[in-house]
Amino acid sequence: MEESDNLFPGVRIVLVETSHPGNIGGAARAMKNMGLTELVLVNPCDFPSDKALYRAVSAEDLLGSARVVTTLDDAIGDVGLVIGTSARDRRIPWPMLTPHECGVKVNQHAIKNAGVAILFGPESRGLKNEDLHRCQFHVNIPTGKAYTSLNLAMAVQVICYEILKAKLDQATATHHAPSHEDSNWDLPFADATAMEHFYVHLERTLTDIKFHDPEVPKQLMTRLRRLFNRIRPDQMEISILRGILSAVDRLGDKKTSK
Amino acid sequence: MEESDNLFPGVRIVLVETSHPGNIGGAARAMKNMGLTELVLVNPCDFPSDKALYRAVSAEDLLGSARVVTTLDDAIGDVGLVIGTSARDRRIPWPMLTPHECGVKVNQHAIKNAGVAILFGPESRGLKNEDLHRCQFHVNIPTGKAYTSLNLAMAVQVICYEILKAKLDQATATHHAPSHEDSNWDLPFADATAMEHFYVHLERTLTDIKFHDPEVPKQLMTRLRRLFNRIRPDQMEISILRGILSAVDRLGDKKTSK
Repeated sequence: MEESDNLFPGVRIVLVETSHPGNIGGAARAMKNMGLTELVLVNPCDFPSDKALYRAVSAEDLLGSARVVTTLDDAIGDVGLVIGTSARDRRIPWPMLTPHECGVKVNQHAIKNAGVAILFGPESRGLKNEDLHRCQFHVNIPTGKAYTSLNLAMAVQVICYEILKAKLDQATATHHAPSHEDSNWDLPFADATAMEHFYVHLERTLTDIKFHDPEVPKQLMTRLRRLFNRIRPDQMEISILRGILSAVDRLGDKKTSK
Repeated sequence: MEESDNLFPGVRIVLVETSHPGNIGGAARAMKNMGLTELVLVNPCDFPSDKALYRAVSAEDLLGSARVVTTLDDAIGDVGLVIGTSARDRRIPWPMLTPHECGVKVNQHAIKNAGVAILFGPESRGLKNEDLHRCQFHVNIPTGKAYTSLNLAMAVQVICYEILKAKLDQATATHHAPSHEDSNWDLPFADATAMEHFYVHLERTLTDIKFHDPEVPKQLMTRLRRLFNRIRPDQMEISILRGILSAVDRLGDKKTSK
């Protein structure tokens, strides 16, 4: 694969527990057509596979360089922006993107080299809620009412098409909404691993101070994840938040040590 | 097939001399996903076919109702707008549409009930020049340079997606992000007063737990304000955050009261 084949360094497509190898091949072809080359497979059911090669046609190099991992953490731990594809309405609304907005956001973020992962779930049931809660945004591909379930590789095609389109549109226009994600933010974003460590720390501290009962969690941690994922903290901010939790921990320690 | 499954009466997808029946099935699924149901096949190499049914999944009704004809005239003779998909640069420049423009044009035209046909050529070589010259417009799906040849069903997916998207964009007068800042969020936002009370509480608690010194504040509160203002918390979220602060306060009270 040529370096220049990859128009989107740091932007990876993550297929989670894909059942049909043909879909992996079809997704690889769709990616390469649109200038993306970084494919990560989390626990694929059947890979490598001749069926994948057959559907990939001239994108077989993407299958050869695909990274196969066993946990979602291995797939997204080092990236700054995680977007999950979601067909269903969820109980707790999550910041949603249209595919077009997803394409724009990926391009804005990719400029900063902070890494982007776009997650696609298994064919039969989509991403699990706990995987969706790892995402800052969900993206939903619109459909008619008669048949709402897109083929997996088709979904990859639509999203990758919007990513390329946004890049081409950028080249010709200069209009997009200024936000802290765009231009001159002073520090890099916390990556997904740092966010996960923060959530673990947060849950432990909230449990210690008896605000949260892991046995009767209700939706507390889900709501807090949704809340802090919306911030997309930078590295100093996540240090401050961790520092506050540690100060609370010390307070609790002093109390119990007395 | 229900009448209402067809969001685009009079808009037909025409596949010319398709080689692989799997692509016919994949195209049918992509169409039905996007609310299109009128499929016309000009001299398909292998149809009907189990491979087409397999790939169509729940769009097999589209295959059942597909019209199979032997000439392009039979396929497009009665429509008012013919658009041809074209990957290659042609010798004679033709009015070109992007997929987005194609979607808009199809919707504009469909309102007039004059019929629209979108032509897709054979997998190996695309539409013949004489077929392309039957078209008012050509539409080209952008690609990266490394691999420019889309799978046929994928091309149908992208074009049908843009047709549905244009219809949905029409429907929503103001087309912007369905983000958490819109009306479909589950709860109203905390107002400015609630935010200010939260910041006062936050600063007091952080001072109590010795994380913050109001005499040597540095930029801590500024950074925290910037951080929480980015969230735009809803009313339940601000209650949760206040609740956490109160739990920390109680912990401190117990400590000092001992």
